Amino acid sequence: MNLVEKILAAHCGKTQVSPGDFINAKVDLVLANDITAPIAIKEFKKVGISKVFDSKKIVFVPDHFVPNKDIASAEQVKMVREFAREQGILFFECGKMGVEHVILHEQGLVLPGDIVVGADSHTCTYGALGAFTTGMGSTDIAAAMATGEVWMKVPQTIKFNYSGKLPKWIGGKDLILYTIGQTGVDGALYSAMFFCGEAIEALSMENRFTMSNMAIEAGGKAGLFRVDEKTLEYVTPRAKRQYTVYDNDADASYAKTYNFDISKIEPQVSLPHSPANARPVSQIGKIKVDQVIIGSCTNGRLEDLAVSAKLLKGNVVHPDLRTIVIPGSQQVYLDALKAGYIETFINAGVAVSTPTCGPCLGGHMGILAAGERCLATTNRNFVGRMGSPKSEVYLAGPAVAAATAIKGYIAHPDEI
Amino acid sequence: MNLVEKILAAHCGKTQVSPGDFINAKVDLVLANDITAPIAIKEFKKVGISKVFDSKKIVFVPDHFVPNKDIASAEQVKMVREFAREQGILFFECGKMGVEHVILHEQGLVLPGDIVVGADSHTCTYGALGAFTTGMGSTDIAAAMATGEVWMKVPQTIKFNYSGKLPKWIGGKDLILYTIGQTGVDGALYSAMFFCGEAIEALSMENRFTMSNMAIEAGGKAGLFRVDEKTLEYVTPRAKRQYTVYDNDADASYAKTYNFDISKIEPQVSLPHSPANARPVSQIGKIKVDQVIIGSCTNGRLEDLAVSAKLLKGNVVHPDLRTIVIPGSQQVYLDALKAGYIETFINAGVAVSTPTCGPCLGGHMGILAAGERCLATTNRNFVGRMGSPKSEVYLAGPAVAAATAIKGYIAHPDEI
Repeated sequence: MNLVEKILAAHCGKTQVSPGDFINAKVDLVLANDITAPIAIKEFKKVGISKVFDSKKIVFVPDHFVPNKDIASAEQVKMVREFAREQGILFFECGKMGVEHVILHEQGLVLPGDIVVGADSHTCTYGALGAFTTGMGSTDIAAAMATGEVWMKVPQTIKFNYSGKLPKWIGGKDLILYTIGQTGVDGALYSAMFFCGEAIEALSMENRFTMSNMAIEAGGKAGLFRVDEKTLEYVTPRAKRQYTVYDNDADASYAKTYNFDISKIEPQVSLPHSPANARPVSQIGKIKVDQVIIGSCTNGRLEDLAVSAKLLKGNVVHPDLRTIVIPGSQQVYLDALKAGYIETFINAGVAVSTPTCGPCLGGHMGILAAGERCLATTNRNFVGRMGSPKSEVYLAGPAVAAATAIKGYIAHPDEI
Repeated sequence: MNLVEKILAAHCGKTQVSPGDFINAKVDLVLANDITAPIAIKEFKKVGISKVFDSKKIVFVPDHFVPNKDIASAEQVKMVREFAREQGILFFECGKMGVEHVILHEQGLVLPGDIVVGADSHTCTYGALGAFTTGMGSTDIAAAMATGEVWMKVPQTIKFNYSGKLPKWIGGKDLILYTIGQTGVDGALYSAMFFCGEAIEALSMENRFTMSNMAIEAGGKAGLFRVDEKTLEYVTPRAKRQYTVYDNDADASYAKTYNFDISKIEPQVSLPHSPANARPVSQIGKIKVDQVIIGSCTNGRLEDLAVSAKLLKGNVVHPDLRTIVIPGSQQVYLDALKAGYIETFINAGVAVSTPTCGPCLGGHMGILAAGERCLATTNRNFVGRMGSPKSEVYLAGPAVAAATAIKGYIAHPDEI
């Protein structure tokens, strides 16, 4: 079996599973946020059980419309908070933690070998830890809250092998945009994506989270990495419970294998209105933008802020645009502050936000008017994703984002 | 004549004006924000003049719903930005400056002896500089943008004399809440409030801005202080143009005089739903709150953050509530960061926001659900001001706010 099949088999009490099998798997953690938890809670209440299966294995993270953007979002968070208090469920109050897909691994709540289900499509982020983690609908999450299990089909696994040395400026975001550019947004439909190869081994954990995070943008059910020294170095100080490291058997099989030589790829930009419209930044011409967003569950970690801050240091945001930096968590914010990055951002004329998903999904904190363009380190650029249906979102990594903030048009970081 | 009458006389080319006179006064600066500028611009366009009277004497500050909270606010800011670019008007982009009534004096745009009109009720803030500054409707502001003049009635002046030494924890916010508690919300209707006395002389400029800021909450047209050494120390490094210092004549007259001995007053809290419901904090009982807001044009300056940070240092926000700190400007943010206050806030579990008016007016960034209570350093606690009409807002200064954040109920700072 491969890594994915082994994790799933271990969680449904079987010695063997194969793609296409239907299983009931025990989950190690169930996640929901301020938008999805209210629906999951309402569905849970219909089941007629008074207590969730295990209050210590459920976590609610209000992060999308927080700090509360309006009365409706305030009512949602209030309802979730009250249910969490009543059930003893972990609830991360506004200002105390941050964005779900940045804090769960940061706080050691997800570990290698886990199955984690979340009522948010980017729950796939934790695949970087060698865990099977996936987004589900709020009704499925309600069932998981009640039973501690999820019913699903074992996905096939597609292997993505990246050879070559990582070029300057190239991070996980460039690799995943390049990959989605090759596969299309449905190239990994209901498949587990397995990322491996020389370039992947060289990648930091933070850059791996970025890649797993966007597995869903290729249609993937999950996006996994092998557990290696880097994983263990990340996990060891954070783990508060036992975990199991699974690895591919020598005869593990895959539905398909992609081989990419990434030694010569350029920083990538995905043009509107699909993450699959990935292009090398030098080939898109001088596209002026009105806003730059650096943050999100895709690129709101310390390394992302470090890359941006190094380029912005001593520079200022172009007069024709506005730039918003959103640390993914309070810990990221604190670390960035201590490293001097926040000071750099403020000096450059950047609006530094408290952690929130905010603009990524058109929630708040930088919404676009008709005709406006934004270059963002977020994960989706569908029509109207960040505001007006007549606005445009371009996706890139933090280096291109910082260069763009300075130049006023989508720029190669070498231009700074 | 008194200080107010002298400023008005000098701006309408007369040697003498008296309360009740109607005058056309030249203005030194015209201000509008993201909510009011669109209305003013539309009205201006109806006048049929192509250019504003003086583009260097007009400033637009998008600060209420920024970073853009939704498509409607994005469209408003876009419209204002485009008009500003077309006319060469000073426009402070999101992330580059901050809240109007914190940045205008910080940037030296308002000076002693000025007349400033703004399409925002808290334009009275700059009275602390010995200037006549007042809020007007957007249509009046459109006329001022066209002609550089405003038509108005000379207000009567009410003198507020504060004797006694400032007790520990007492700042401008406590004095002004106490004052409004005495006068009621219409006690200074269409009057200029003149603040003076021993306690006022001892007050820092930042605390004076807090007092002037809330003159409107007593119905005041403006709230002025004499120019003294502290004013000049504040103004001198910021002034980029000439200004005139006016003072009361020895025989100046006032409509009324209040004498307050403040040597024994306690930190004040205004209960819902009026700033005039001011009470000593020890007399209100243990009122639990769900949210604390520290910021706004009233209390978003460095000293406010310093007072809060000193109390929060080594403490954490109470588990039952959330706390949001909003520096009033990028400069305040930077200074607070360098002083270690931002680190203290993050360590305490505070959400630190980019400068915005946000929650003060129920805009975004901390809106309340039904049944929720907030203790805020803002200026108004009318029904529904910060969200649900079934929520409650309590007003206080930054010391009470920080103590409340730690204790979970509205607390005296001595409890920390």
